[in-house]
Amino acid sequence: MIRVAILGATGYTARELLPLLLRHPDVEVGALTTRKDTKPHVADVHPNMRGRLDLVLENLSLAEVAQRAECVFGCLPHGASAASISELLEAGCRVVDFSADYRLDDPQVYAEWYGVEHPDPKRMPETVYGLPELYRETIRGAKLVANPGCYPTSAILALAPLLEQKVISPNGIVIDSKSGVSGAGRTPKPNLHFPECNESLSAYGVGQHRHTPEIDQILSSSAGVATNAVFTPHLVPMNRGILTTAYADPTRDVEENEILEVLRSRYENEPFVRVVDNLPSTKDVVGTNYCDVTARMVRGKVLMVSVIDNLIKGASGAAVQNFNLMYNFPETTALT
Amino acid sequence: MIRVAILGATGYTARELLPLLLRHPDVEVGALTTRKDTKPHVADVHPNMRGRLDLVLENLSLAEVAQRAECVFGCLPHGASAASISELLEAGCRVVDFSADYRLDDPQVYAEWYGVEHPDPKRMPETVYGLPELYRETIRGAKLVANPGCYPTSAILALAPLLEQKVISPNGIVIDSKSGVSGAGRTPKPNLHFPECNESLSAYGVGQHRHTPEIDQILSSSAGVATNAVFTPHLVPMNRGILTTAYADPTRDVEENEILEVLRSRYENEPFVRVVDNLPSTKDVVGTNYCDVTARMVRGKVLMVSVIDNLIKGASGAAVQNFNLMYNFPETTALT
Amino acid sequence: MIRVAILGATGYTARELLPLLLRHPDVEVGALTTRKDTKPHVADVHPNMRGRLDLVLENLSLAEVAQRAECVFGCLPHGASAASISELLEAGCRVVDFSADYRLDDPQVYAEWYGVEHPDPKRMPETVYGLPELYRETIRGAKLVANPGCYPTSAILALAPLLEQKVISPNGIVIDSKSGVSGAGRTPKPNLHFPECNESLSAYGVGQHRHTPEIDQILSSSAGVATNAVFTPHLVPMNRGILTTAYADPTRDVEENEILEVLRSRYENEPFVRVVDNLPSTKDVVGTNYCDVTARMVRGKVLMVSVIDNLIKGASGAAVQNFNLMYNFPETTALT
Amino acid sequence: MIRVAILGATGYTARELLPLLLRHPDVEVGALTTRKDTKPHVADVHPNMRGRLDLVLENLSLAEVAQRAECVFGCLPHGASAASISELLEAGCRVVDFSADYRLDDPQVYAEWYGVEHPDPKRMPETVYGLPELYRETIRGAKLVANPGCYPTSAILALAPLLEQKVISPNGIVIDSKSGVSGAGRTPKPNLHFPECNESLSAYGVGQHRHTPEIDQILSSSAGVATNAVFTPHLVPMNRGILTTAYADPTRDVEENEILEVLRSRYENEPFVRVVDNLPSTKDVVGTNYCDVTARMVRGKVLMVSVIDNLIKGASGAAVQNFNLMYNFPETTALT
Repeated sequence: MIRVAILGATGYTARELLPLLLRHPDVEVGALTTRKDTKPHVADVHPNMRGRLDLVLENLSLAEVAQRAECVFGCLPHGASAASISELLEAGCRVVDFSADYRLDDPQVYAEWYGVEHPDPKRMPETVYGLPELYRETIRGAKLVANPGCYPTSAILALAPLLEQKVISPNGIVIDSKSGVSGAGRTPKPNLHFPECNESLSAYGVGQHRHTPEIDQILSSSAGVATNAVFTPHLVPMNRGILTTAYADPTRDVEENEILEVLRSRYENEPFVRVVDNLPSTKDVVGTNYCDVTARMVRGKVLMVSVIDNLIKGASGAAVQNFNLMYNFPETTALT
Repeated sequence: MIRVAILGATGYTARELLPLLLRHPDVEVGALTTRKDTKPHVADVHPNMRGRLDLVLENLSLAEVAQRAECVFGCLPHGASAASISELLEAGCRVVDFSADYRLDDPQVYAEWYGVEHPDPKRMPETVYGLPELYRETIRGAKLVANPGCYPTSAILALAPLLEQKVISPNGIVIDSKSGVSGAGRTPKPNLHFPECNESLSAYGVGQHRHTPEIDQILSSSAGVATNAVFTPHLVPMNRGILTTAYADPTRDVEENEILEVLRSRYENEPFVRVVDNLPSTKDVVGTNYCDVTARMVRGKVLMVSVIDNLIKGASGAAVQNFNLMYNFPETTALT
Repeated sequence: MIRVAILGATGYTARELLPLLLRHPDVEVGALTTRKDTKPHVADVHPNMRGRLDLVLENLSLAEVAQRAECVFGCLPHGASAASISELLEAGCRVVDFSADYRLDDPQVYAEWYGVEHPDPKRMPETVYGLPELYRETIRGAKLVANPGCYPTSAILALAPLLEQKVISPNGIVIDSKSGVSGAGRTPKPNLHFPECNESLSAYGVGQHRHTPEIDQILSSSAGVATNAVFTPHLVPMNRGILTTAYADPTRDVEENEILEVLRSRYENEPFVRVVDNLPSTKDVVGTNYCDVTARMVRGKVLMVSVIDNLIKGASGAAVQNFNLMYNFPETTALT
Repeated sequence: MIRVAILGATGYTARELLPLLLRHPDVEVGALTTRKDTKPHVADVHPNMRGRLDLVLENLSLAEVAQRAECVFGCLPHGASAASISELLEAGCRVVDFSADYRLDDPQVYAEWYGVEHPDPKRMPETVYGLPELYRETIRGAKLVANPGCYPTSAILALAPLLEQKVISPNGIVIDSKSGVSGAGRTPKPNLHFPECNESLSAYGVGQHRHTPEIDQILSSSAGVATNAVFTPHLVPMNRGILTTAYADPTRDVEENEILEVLRSRYENEPFVRVVDNLPSTKDVVGTNYCDVTARMVRGKVLMVSVIDNLIKGASGAAVQNFNLMYNFPETTALT
């Protein structure tokens, strides 16, 4: 039985993580933290927990967290996250970090995109990027795993196999992603006020979204050369789900079936990637840890479509999948 | 040409009022106020105005407002509203007040439900309640009109004719109302954050909603005796529209057709009330100044259903209808 | 290991039932039926099953079903359901019937509301109504269970304890229910076309909804005398969830706390009913088998609010709860 | 006063056209047609018309239509449309055709994409494409105008100025469009059933959507050479609005401001195109005839974002704009 804690347990990632942890036969939730001192009951913060988990959220010191938990799921904002996590690691905890802090290898790139100096730059290059489909063996037994961003997960799972096989060019890739609103977090903001974003659609963060360097780092590693993708996120009036439509130039004369075959053989043994023939909808995967992906050839361009639940495969489900690998549990435990 | 101003022009009522005013052949918008000093352009506050109205929102004194406008639409919060309006009236302006400040007759009842002393109690009993279907003749030429609340409009238009005719009992009336989220205003709040209220439904303010005394005051006046309705508002995941289902006991053996006939003859000449045979949907009236209403007899109870657009017939459309009456324009000007 | 089949496995109840059955450690899905002869793969009918269940839907005879399954979940339309089920029972199967066919005791009432003669009237009075909170002991070991309707579940769980304790009058009860659209089933219809019901709200089936006699039968049994509730369903633009607001007259001077106490002591040991102090939202229970319920006193009326997921506690979750009782598995298996 | 008719008046384009026509001071609606013989009242087909227009829909012969109307708005499906329209033109009517029948110049391309022979191929090359921003002078006084498709309108208004000025390459253009569900019409279909498309997102018609040749024809004409755009439509869970994100390669070193300047000077005098600095949302234009458009440079690609209301600027508003030009009314009549 592994005792776990959630740092920053008031948001949507914690809300989605809790039911998975309760379903996990080898997990016990030992602590939930918040910066508030009011000790709210978890059921008042996450009504889905009423009658299922009897815990209060507490403003705990990291020493107290380390005493109560062997493994910590970090749901803190970037910057704050790395500061806490380095201390927890030194206290002997293992950590799955939902923040962006350990996803990038290069402190310089981090500073550029996040606007702050990284508090723990030494650990950046050595931390594994928690996408099991690409880095499973390194995740096994890891002490610290950087849980991937939601958009990067949907884009990388679609594009990495084709870059690995050099079927598509690393240049000129367009990643047009569309996300439900929960991806923007639980803090009320004017543009996320119901009557403002309901029945409306918009692009945002064009050319400036922080998932851009994360996508490039992993795709570059798959391609063996630097990529330079144009990534455009859009806000869609639905609670959850991401659909990514990606466009790339083939490196040679290639047919649709051949591309699908590259995907199929790459993901043959993956428990959570389904290569489908149809055009997938987000509803096919919402509430699950699956990524559905397909490909088309259109007028000489390779077109990829992938869908995930941004809160499961794009966050809390991926975290449990990583946890299972870290502790050598069957990878699908609590996820099916 | 009447020059008008909007006090507190950042919210949804102003956003809906502006296109109606632009369409009105005898209106010129002279001023828009806000408490902020940044002088935002109206198109940055209300993107629907881009290219249509070239004005900035200004933090104007009431004297300045009175200089720029002959008629003022007050979209301020209760309390603040009456304080400003009394001054504007003294400066010679006419006013349509969207707030609740002049709807109730009794300062005592106001203090009870709104938790503050009324700043201008003398004007309360003499101010007309701006529901043309009930008080048209008093609204004509009025200096100050209290624009009705959205829920009261939907409930009163359904029930008043039956109370006037003493077809239903004034006791034990149940008013179960369901509203789109724009009714809660434009200020972001946790429960109005998109992922919190989308795909969810809840009752709120049970037994405590401030529209209760307003409903009772007008229904009591129609009935000739005090009513004591139970009013329950619900928040529905849609932008706009109110549907009210009301239940009442008949005073005598009565048939469905007779009730429909009472409604039909009462509203025969009303330009904006449509007595329908079908069960109306909010989509039948959204974007318009209509109220659709019907009746059924179910197991001995009289059941009424009415629908309005909370922002039009429940707010800005009603205000223009009142304005037209105050200035003797054809009542439907700018509303069809 | 119990082998089960689903009759009529193309709809939403089957879609929701399948993941619960896959999660149940003592269940094996042996057959899925449809009237079509095309043998579609379950993943093409329910994309959430892709990679999780490898079965085709087949147009099987009842004899074949009985050979492949020990327990059958019937998701057929009323009329058709009883005809099939009587045969399956005689072939030795146990059955949980989602249709209305065995919910009512009286063939006469059935004929009145459903417009057809019941094909198996003898079994009607002896079949248990599958609401464990009221009839748990009779469900244990039963051969046939009539799974309750979604609206009746939400209304009965709110009102039955107060009628049992004679705290509220059996006369004049108003049940105003609001449901997400999945309750209307999977068959496309003009009024369920996305642009028609999105952003709109309507009442339907006023005075004529077939859940009316079902509600009355069970409430009458709780009250010990006939009830005559006015039941009004509404269609809300969301996928799932029912919120019921019920209004009743108290039989005596009673306080809010006393009513809440009646609910609390009645449901103290129930695994899936949570008596809450707050006003519950449907999102608190969507995706779960819980019913959250609360009470208020408003101007002399008792007001109840209850919420369920219409597809889980209102259908497939209740079916699994009944299945667990029928086979003596822990009641919450596969439901938490 | 121009008497007009709508052919095929049951759908969403007719529903949106009617209020515009009622608001037009020089229009009288003379006939509404349907293939049904039941003569439904327009208010039963389009509840927004109740009390505003007293007409029945009739199964009229084309001769009868020509007798009752001087100008006809054709809302028939492709194929059927051209057959009727050629007859109406010969009877002396003028026509705005909403179908795709007269949009393409080349009968061969039509046959390829629509799978049928065109019934009136001679008129194809000589019919003006009703996008006033490109073909205003030819629309003036025209007898027949082909009203543009909704997706093409959003794509062409964003891209044409840059192709005209040769700022972007005609090769490799990616048009990623997202539309509300009303664009799919009013006929219920499984994938448009509320619970199927609500809270879900999908791409559809990838590489096969019939708006592709229409986009290419007009963009090619702007570019002066053939374009070969990849066009991908997506279905978004909202009623109305299209947002198009387009990606193109610049032909030379160009800055964001320069591109915005090309747009600004191109659309300077256009009443319904607003070049904006911000990233526009569909809500900024829903309910209006505006197209908002902006541009960004991202990693060497030109990125365009445009938004329209698919039913107004993408259909019925454009039709009225064309009508105004055909009859020499001020172009914005009934549209502001």
